[in-house]
Amino acid sequence: MTEARIRVPIHLRWGDLDAYNHVNNASMLKLLEEARVRAFWLPGATERAVPTAVIDASHGASQLTLIARQEIEYLAPVPYQREPIDVQMWFGKIGGSSAEVNYEVFTPAGQEPRTLYARASTVIVQVDAGTGRPVRLSPETRAAWEPYLGEPLPPLGRR
Amino acid sequence: MTEARIRVPIHLRWGDLDAYNHVNNASMLKLLEEARVRAFWLPGATERAVPTAVIDASHGASQLTLIARQEIEYLAPVPYQREPIDVQMWFGKIGGSSAEVNYEVFTPAGQEPRTLYARASTVIVQVDAGTGRPVRLSPETRAAWEPYLGEPLPPLGRR
Amino acid sequence: MTEARIRVPIHLRWGDLDAYNHVNNASMLKLLEEARVRAFWLPGATERAVPTAVIDASHGASQLTLIARQEIEYLAPVPYQREPIDVQMWFGKIGGSSAEVNYEVFTPAGQEPRTLYARASTVIVQVDAGTGRPVRLSPETRAAWEPYLGEPLPPLGRR
Amino acid sequence: MTEARIRVPIHLRWGDLDAYNHVNNASMLKLLEEARVRAFWLPGATERAVPTAVIDASHGASQLTLIARQEIEYLAPVPYQREPIDVQMWFGKIGGSSAEVNYEVFTPAGQEPRTLYARASTVIVQVDAGTGRPVRLSPETRAAWEPYLGEPLPPLGRR
Repeated sequence: MTEARIRVPIHLRWGDLDAYNHVNNASMLKLLEEARVRAFWLPGATERAVPTAVIDASHGASQLTLIARQEIEYLAPVPYQREPIDVQMWFGKIGGSSAEVNYEVFTPAGQEPRTLYARASTVIVQVDAGTGRPVRLSPETRAAWEPYLGEPLPPLGRR
Repeated sequence: MTEARIRVPIHLRWGDLDAYNHVNNASMLKLLEEARVRAFWLPGATERAVPTAVIDASHGASQLTLIARQEIEYLAPVPYQREPIDVQMWFGKIGGSSAEVNYEVFTPAGQEPRTLYARASTVIVQVDAGTGRPVRLSPETRAAWEPYLGEPLPPLGRR
Repeated sequence: MTEARIRVPIHLRWGDLDAYNHVNNASMLKLLEEARVRAFWLPGATERAVPTAVIDASHGASQLTLIARQEIEYLAPVPYQREPIDVQMWFGKIGGSSAEVNYEVFTPAGQEPRTLYARASTVIVQVDAGTGRPVRLSPETRAAWEPYLGEPLPPLGRR
Repeated sequence: MTEARIRVPIHLRWGDLDAYNHVNNASMLKLLEEARVRAFWLPGATERAVPTAVIDASHGASQLTLIARQEIEYLAPVPYQREPIDVQMWFGKIGGSSAEVNYEVFTPAGQEPRTLYARASTVIVQVDAGTGRPVRLSPETRAAWEPYLGEPLPPLGRR
């Protein structure tokens, strides 16, 4: 186990705000989705990515990565800002064909004071694109992800 | 306790699909958001709504309804379809200034076979628009919602 | 030439609003997209649709409908409302492999006073899914659409 | 007149794609919206921005910037990519209370071959937040923008 985290800067868009003038609750999941794509999907031929980006998610790939479940706790309203917010990710669990991705979402890296905006968790499942059946994570995927296997997200608070 | 549910038909949009040709995981939260608005927010002067629609969410209202946390389990992919899907809601808990809204999302009402697409839960908190502090739910709100107080959502499955 | 129009009711979502508390400029194009899908795409096996819904847009279809260009004039801010807005459509032109769809977007049908929210125009092009090359509209498509061939949209105003 | 352009890198999100696996037509307007915000809205206290970013768009500001009309021509499908696309902007016209923003949207800066994805134009109008009436652009706004006054966008092609 380790405390290593994958950190992905994600740019907000003014369009992520809703009529309350804060990043919308569903838009926040869009931001996490983009962080996952950048952290875990194979980059294009000329693109760079982090070493955990090993999943072939190209159109026509033999496997799909589905979302089985998600939890998110919203801790502070997120205003529009130009610097990318700091999405930190690690694995709470790496199973046979699934993995639990945990997140903590912070103010932009280096900015003070630092605010924890949200904590979240996503269970992703690797399935066969044809049959929809779960497929085992490959040894390569497992090897790439295990350095970031850490603590499960503590139970989200109840208000 | 009761099994009564608030049922809100919600129209999909083709734009809710992502590149996997299914309703996107974050878009699903948008659909639940719209179901909440229709079920719980006061309608406009000439509009009709269900009896649970008692929250004044107009711009400039003295209170805001924030989302504290959400959980969602995706059980079956949702294809584009023209008939509105059947979002069923009830309260798992009604607290002092907060409430837990539970959802089950089904194929359009009356359509067979019936598929349970997703189960979810949202904790909403009523806060003062000025201070951001929690505010007690009014007796009127409580009276309108209690007929739909039911079972908490069973723990979401782990795959 | 005729004044016949295809009228599609489209439900807003509170999530279509932006921080200005009105339907966002890009969200309006999402509403028009949904109106097009309902007006022009073949319905599913058990679904009903208007007679102009003749395009096979299913995944794996041999042809795709692309958007070549769009124009939109925003005439009045659109507030959130529960009743579906009234999207009226007609063809400004039906070409060899393309067509110009015109729109006027109004307050919900039957509601007074009636407000014209927006006027818009979209040029759609039928292309081969494999090669991306334009493909001629079929005689069936042409026959289904010609009853709704009307005036081109007048040049959008300049402020 | 000049050829000077404001260049804003805008990150795509995988969620901008639709079921055709390309950036959606309405999502493209979201990207242009974000480019406008970054190019023309005053940055926050600790943020940096280009010299054209002079509009006070904060909540409670005395003026609002509305969109009067938009045109867009889609020239090539935009695939998901990690590097930010290159949105180039200039003014086609600067009027009394309005301005026409032109755009050309390209593959990421420095990438070869270079593709022109889209050309577009937006008419923005400065209005009083209370009355909704047009308000004259300030001399400061005019001075900040005039270096980027260029050619009007040529009439968009007809297919």
